[in-house]
Amino acid sequence: MRDIAVVGIGMTKFGELWQQSLRDLFVEAAMKAIDDAGVDHIDSMYVGSMTPGLFVGQEHIGALMADYLGAAPVPAMRVESACSSGGMALRAGFFEVASGYSDIVLVGGVEKMNDGADVTYALATAADQEYEVYQGVTFPGLYALIARAHMHAYGTTHEQLAAVSVKNHKHGMMNPNAQFPREITRDQVLKATVIADPLTILECSPVSDGAACAIIAPIEIAKKLGKPVIKIIGTGAATDTIALHARADITTLNAVKQSAMAAFKMAGKQPKDIDLAEVHDCFSIAEICIIEDLGFTEKGKGGEFTEKGHTGISGQIPVNTSGGLKSKGHPVGATGIAQVVEVTEQLRGTAGKRQVKDAKVALTQNMGGSGASSVVHIFQKEV
Amino acid sequence: MRDIAVVGIGMTKFGELWQQSLRDLFVEAAMKAIDDAGVDHIDSMYVGSMTPGLFVGQEHIGALMADYLGAAPVPAMRVESACSSGGMALRAGFFEVASGYSDIVLVGGVEKMNDGADVTYALATAADQEYEVYQGVTFPGLYALIARAHMHAYGTTHEQLAAVSVKNHKHGMMNPNAQFPREITRDQVLKATVIADPLTILECSPVSDGAACAIIAPIEIAKKLGKPVIKIIGTGAATDTIALHARADITTLNAVKQSAMAAFKMAGKQPKDIDLAEVHDCFSIAEICIIEDLGFTEKGKGGEFTEKGHTGISGQIPVNTSGGLKSKGHPVGATGIAQVVEVTEQLRGTAGKRQVKDAKVALTQNMGGSGASSVVHIFQKEV
Repeated sequence: MRDIAVVGIGMTKFGELWQQSLRDLFVEAAMKAIDDAGVDHIDSMYVGSMTPGLFVGQEHIGALMADYLGAAPVPAMRVESACSSGGMALRAGFFEVASGYSDIVLVGGVEKMNDGADVTYALATAADQEYEVYQGVTFPGLYALIARAHMHAYGTTHEQLAAVSVKNHKHGMMNPNAQFPREITRDQVLKATVIADPLTILECSPVSDGAACAIIAPIEIAKKLGKPVIKIIGTGAATDTIALHARADITTLNAVKQSAMAAFKMAGKQPKDIDLAEVHDCFSIAEICIIEDLGFTEKGKGGEFTEKGHTGISGQIPVNTSGGLKSKGHPVGATGIAQVVEVTEQLRGTAGKRQVKDAKVALTQNMGGSGASSVVHIFQKEV
Repeated sequence: MRDIAVVGIGMTKFGELWQQSLRDLFVEAAMKAIDDAGVDHIDSMYVGSMTPGLFVGQEHIGALMADYLGAAPVPAMRVESACSSGGMALRAGFFEVASGYSDIVLVGGVEKMNDGADVTYALATAADQEYEVYQGVTFPGLYALIARAHMHAYGTTHEQLAAVSVKNHKHGMMNPNAQFPREITRDQVLKATVIADPLTILECSPVSDGAACAIIAPIEIAKKLGKPVIKIIGTGAATDTIALHARADITTLNAVKQSAMAAFKMAGKQPKDIDLAEVHDCFSIAEICIIEDLGFTEKGKGGEFTEKGHTGISGQIPVNTSGGLKSKGHPVGATGIAQVVEVTEQLRGTAGKRQVKDAKVALTQNMGGSGASSVVHIFQKEV
């Protein structure tokens, strides 16, 4: 398998972007990534998107984006894995380059959620339609169940959950692409409108429009492009039961554990080797479970670990320096690649005020549904 | 890049399958393919599907199918490229095995179209939502425009178009999995209800439920499984403008030409080396354009070539021995893999009454939209 590096990155601002359509968003991010890479062509494209069909009445967006990017006839396909569509697009593109079939591949993600669609229903299609959605459960409800179970099993407090949102907004303030770049306090989180008890609106990631892209290439090409070489040293993906009720323990996200294990094994790394991580904080409780299941802290200790500041920018393991899904925004298909944009900035040393000192190894974790799928990548700066 | 073979195939009957849900269909095809391969596990899965979100309110079907197949935690992702989603799933799985990351990969496709959704709208999302669908154009209309242009440019007759449907139904009669396994006459085609002039209902592929799966593996594993080894010797994909109006010549499907060129180059083959082909006859005119753009006959001569019987089972180049989309049925995401099922049967010599004599090299061509994407694979029996 060939060694592969991220050679270019680009993203739009995340937010309610009424002036830009689905295709506008993707093309903006793609042009930025191509420009950043300094390449004169791409060999192929992967577009991650969860449900452009339900959001804006458009499927077939691999071909659409190739056309509007002016890249046709290059091969293009869309990859979907609910909110982990972006991460899976990177993984699919990785395999194409790793196989030796192609050299320069664009991997991206996009979602246009603010365009009049029934967002709650559209997102619910990532859950089990027959056994969950039909009964009226939606994602805030599913994650609230996880939160209650976690509180019950490990004594996690609501204050600890709130600490995730407070921390991510603090980081997001320093991200010019963030949808909500403003500080929030613990009290504001706790006293905000309850969406699904115990989760308040300030513990739920927002509805966002946006796109993010990255260009990947074999390391020999990366070395010629004049930027720090950010190698992708591990990829892992895994699945779990689609329905929450079918799991032995809903406080453990088995797909996160399994995908991390595969990526760590491939990379020859352990959790302690990671200098920073972007993880899928779709709800405050998600980040708590994920940092436990990635092995950054003991099972059940994620709340305490967060409350103590260990996941802040100058903590033991900075998590979501970008602001995460909560503050940066969560255009679902774009999220997995926006994570790649952040870790690439961090490893290049160009993350500005958000910069983690001496960052050399970073991890991204992108999740679908209530954890039915997860994809982890590990990146290392070539020195 | 490693050499890869198809080691197992399975499909459901295609049709209006009211007793089976989306997940039932996929699991049935997957179990058949696993059983046919004789493997005791799979390393990963790709599920091709066009729009399960619009058809049955379910996205995230990579994880869903892994779960219901009992395969979780194996990695799974959905691939979408409109009606070429199945072929693209094979291509994505091919890269994963070719890279050396995984050995035994399940690639499948599924669609459940008869479940109450607005099928015409759902399918139209494969066209340009902003410049075509919004104006009221749907696929029969787009292909009717291609048909009229072809008739005008090359003198193609309606009788010649009808010959495609007659031939494919003749083949489909011999396929136990076909949705419409019955003969039709040229007169019946010409006198049937007009859908979009000149195309009648007997020139349009039907609305179908169904699934198809294949297992692929490196050739060393294939050789141990005791079945004829069917190598995948070429893969090619390409895109074109999403909207028909943006093309210089709507009678030429450039994505078909480009994807074929890439696959032929990789395989070291030419059109004359192909013993049989499964192509994307979503409408009668599509098969005419495709056999021209694949190089089986001269541009503009596809109608005459078909009318003369050259694409019949004992013709120069048998096309759609399975019955094609027209007679076998077209559950859109499943079609690309159903093509693989047919060519594998043919190359194994197990196609029964449909068997093409001495078939050694076969081609599949799967298309999305009005030709905005196309994917071609070439298969060769290892002797």
